[in-house]
Amino acid sequence: MLRPLLTLTGGLLAALAVVSAQAKPLSQEDISVAEVLRDRALESSDAYSLVESLTVEVGPRRAGTEGDRRAVAWALQKMKTLGFDRVYTEQIDVKRWHRGHAHAEVVAPFPQPLVVSSLGYSVPTPEGGLTAEIVEFADVEALTKASAKKVKGKIVFINRRMERARTGEGYGPAVQGRSKGMRIAAEKGAVALLLRSVGTDSDRFAHTGMMSIEGVENPVPALALSAPDANLLEAMLKRGKPVEVKLDVDNELLADGPSFNVIGEITGREKPEEVMIIGAHLDSWDEGTGALDDGAGVAIVLETARLIAELPSRPRRTLRVVLFGAEEIGLVGAKQYVEAHRSELDNIIAVSESDFGAGKVWRFDTRLPENKFDIADQMMQLLAPLGIERGNNNSHGGPDGSVFVAQGVPAFGLYQDGTDYFDFHHTPNDTLDKVDPENLKQNVAAWVVMSFLVAEMEGDLGRVPTEH
Amino acid sequence: MLRPLLTLTGGLLAALAVVSAQAKPLSQEDISVAEVLRDRALESSDAYSLVESLTVEVGPRRAGTEGDRRAVAWALQKMKTLGFDRVYTEQIDVKRWHRGHAHAEVVAPFPQPLVVSSLGYSVPTPEGGLTAEIVEFADVEALTKASAKKVKGKIVFINRRMERARTGEGYGPAVQGRSKGMRIAAEKGAVALLLRSVGTDSDRFAHTGMMSIEGVENPVPALALSAPDANLLEAMLKRGKPVEVKLDVDNELLADGPSFNVIGEITGREKPEEVMIIGAHLDSWDEGTGALDDGAGVAIVLETARLIAELPSRPRRTLRVVLFGAEEIGLVGAKQYVEAHRSELDNIIAVSESDFGAGKVWRFDTRLPENKFDIADQMMQLLAPLGIERGNNNSHGGPDGSVFVAQGVPAFGLYQDGTDYFDFHHTPNDTLDKVDPENLKQNVAAWVVMSFLVAEMEGDLGRVPTEH
Repeated sequence: MLRPLLTLTGGLLAALAVVSAQAKPLSQEDISVAEVLRDRALESSDAYSLVESLTVEVGPRRAGTEGDRRAVAWALQKMKTLGFDRVYTEQIDVKRWHRGHAHAEVVAPFPQPLVVSSLGYSVPTPEGGLTAEIVEFADVEALTKASAKKVKGKIVFINRRMERARTGEGYGPAVQGRSKGMRIAAEKGAVALLLRSVGTDSDRFAHTGMMSIEGVENPVPALALSAPDANLLEAMLKRGKPVEVKLDVDNELLADGPSFNVIGEITGREKPEEVMIIGAHLDSWDEGTGALDDGAGVAIVLETARLIAELPSRPRRTLRVVLFGAEEIGLVGAKQYVEAHRSELDNIIAVSESDFGAGKVWRFDTRLPENKFDIADQMMQLLAPLGIERGNNNSHGGPDGSVFVAQGVPAFGLYQDGTDYFDFHHTPNDTLDKVDPENLKQNVAAWVVMSFLVAEMEGDLGRVPTEH
Repeated sequence: MLRPLLTLTGGLLAALAVVSAQAKPLSQEDISVAEVLRDRALESSDAYSLVESLTVEVGPRRAGTEGDRRAVAWALQKMKTLGFDRVYTEQIDVKRWHRGHAHAEVVAPFPQPLVVSSLGYSVPTPEGGLTAEIVEFADVEALTKASAKKVKGKIVFINRRMERARTGEGYGPAVQGRSKGMRIAAEKGAVALLLRSVGTDSDRFAHTGMMSIEGVENPVPALALSAPDANLLEAMLKRGKPVEVKLDVDNELLADGPSFNVIGEITGREKPEEVMIIGAHLDSWDEGTGALDDGAGVAIVLETARLIAELPSRPRRTLRVVLFGAEEIGLVGAKQYVEAHRSELDNIIAVSESDFGAGKVWRFDTRLPENKFDIADQMMQLLAPLGIERGNNNSHGGPDGSVFVAQGVPAFGLYQDGTDYFDFHHTPNDTLDKVDPENLKQNVAAWVVMSFLVAEMEGDLGRVPTEH
């Protein structure tokens, strides 16, 4: 009695599932294929081999440098071996900059050297360096409120600490000092900016990064201090005597030059003109080898595409991997991509970027019209066993992805654990050993589920109003 | 009924304890005083203030540099405020050396920069640098066995990893490449040495340190590579093509110059000529601020003495704090101290040095004649509650202490947890934030017990045969 009953019940459930699935964007067959892809991803170390290759054979690749050119050649060559149907580059224009030396030392009252790094586009000091007293501010808001008299002729020292969080949410408030600090300091007559690094570590590495220089009339040198060096200045100031620092910085703004977005496509079998974009950025800062930022992302999206390209047939839509150029210096590749492809934006069905290191994915965010949540719910069947929880609908699609989101393109966000990310971000310490091969497999598993199912699904995702 | 019985029992026990104590080198009163000192140590943050002061107000202090001179002045000034009866310096002679820049980069097949640090006394490269192929060796033994033909004209790359251990026992075998590698490479006609850093971290810091240059006829430049950079070279070599590296190093051997042992004494009330030496070294390497190596040790022994100096009366013997100069470049201060004080060595009742960072003390070692173990057993009454276990009788007394031990002087060793010590050792990352204030209190608590009781005990400790 028991067995027939179970069979009957099973059959009934299966029938109900079919009825239910028919109302959903993803068929059971799609989900089964995605499950196979996911499990293949968990068994493959190819993504790790890719980030190893990029960091060893190319290494630093700041936009517009020789390393950047080598990275573009590397990406083209790799894509050609990974099964893409079409591989090509699109040129972009970047503001180039030469990083020279950056030395800093306390000259009084307690002479000793400091570890610093020029922020991107920092001007040099005058020949022979400059020496001035430092004046400390708790954050960029305090600097904004300060009188020019307090600042004039001095080196502004912004001493704001960044909070550690799995989401990396401490970054946004802390990075204000880096993006705006030099401008405000220069306007008030400071001779330079020293910024406590935007980072969560306590290692003697300064964290470099981009600052806004557009329209700054008299830019001054701007340097990040490692956390232990910021502690040193803080401790010296507490002793009540003026602290004088000498800076000697040799950078140079160069003529604009070319870089490239590198693009690989798996052409859709039914709707080739409809495109799911998955991206990462190819450029890196120049003091590490860009393993976490964003070699890992490059590897994750390339391996995702390779697994999908190995299926016996193409997904319904085109899967386009875009390795964006010049992300680090202002989302330059993404902005120029969207500009160049404005007429096709309606065909970009969704976007997602991997650019938050190599930690495990723990949350699945979306940016979808509310009547399109079904697809995300269905994906969660395959993502939940990877330890991923359903997040919110405020995904920005990643840094480059956000440029598409601003145009109404739907987005998916596979949120990585960023607890340690800002320990290494933009430092010489962003190297391959910080990438956990097992975590990388879990990332690819999540990405291949999401990417395949969006490319394969019935229906569409519509647009998401940008005031969302 | 119960209460009188307990009182009686208590009285009986106390009486028995007195009888027992009379046969032991430490009286119950001595132990009670030591217990008070220990508990005061656990409540005081003065040791942390001392290492903070040294790292902030002096910072790097490589022997024979301006920083070293400032450190000597700092130590004298501090000692004068801490209650010593006598404070003085003894001059030593040191081999001086200027560290200039050290740049390294892979030029083929995968051009990218490397993070390196000159080993102590490394010669410079020729003007304009040198470029050569690297040849890898697993360790210094493999290099020793290699033919000159394999090495001639090349850059030797010693790629030995160091094992992590609480005892730091991985250091001895790993440091051979640093102490002997350059000599052997030069003898076989190599043009330079690149050494995987002697360290346990995976941060992009190279670990500098001393090498032996005595009698090397044609020294060549010798540089440590950070672990991630050694990984890079290893990965490039695995790809099977010759790897060429360019080095550009600017160092200079200078004329010999003075440094100092800085000494403070608490004069013994009964046997002032008998001396317990507790030490640390004042010099540091020059890329960090010498917080762990050996600012922490300096702070521990100074605070130990301060606590003892605060007692209403002096201990029976003299407690002498020696802050040794030039430890890092070959135990120079200790060797010259022993040479200058050879006639008084019999009066140095025991020696102990703190020079293994700022981790908690977990083991109490000794180097005593076997009939003198009683004192250590008695000390354990007060050390065990600090989480310290009784260790062995092979203590070397610390690096500088070992020079005394070689002359038969008994030694005590309060062994610190060194699990993380070689993550920071001899790198720019040896900074104050690596010192845990609570661990420092526990260290002082153990040191003050040991130091007071040796200075105060009945009897003597004899000599320990050097073939021990």
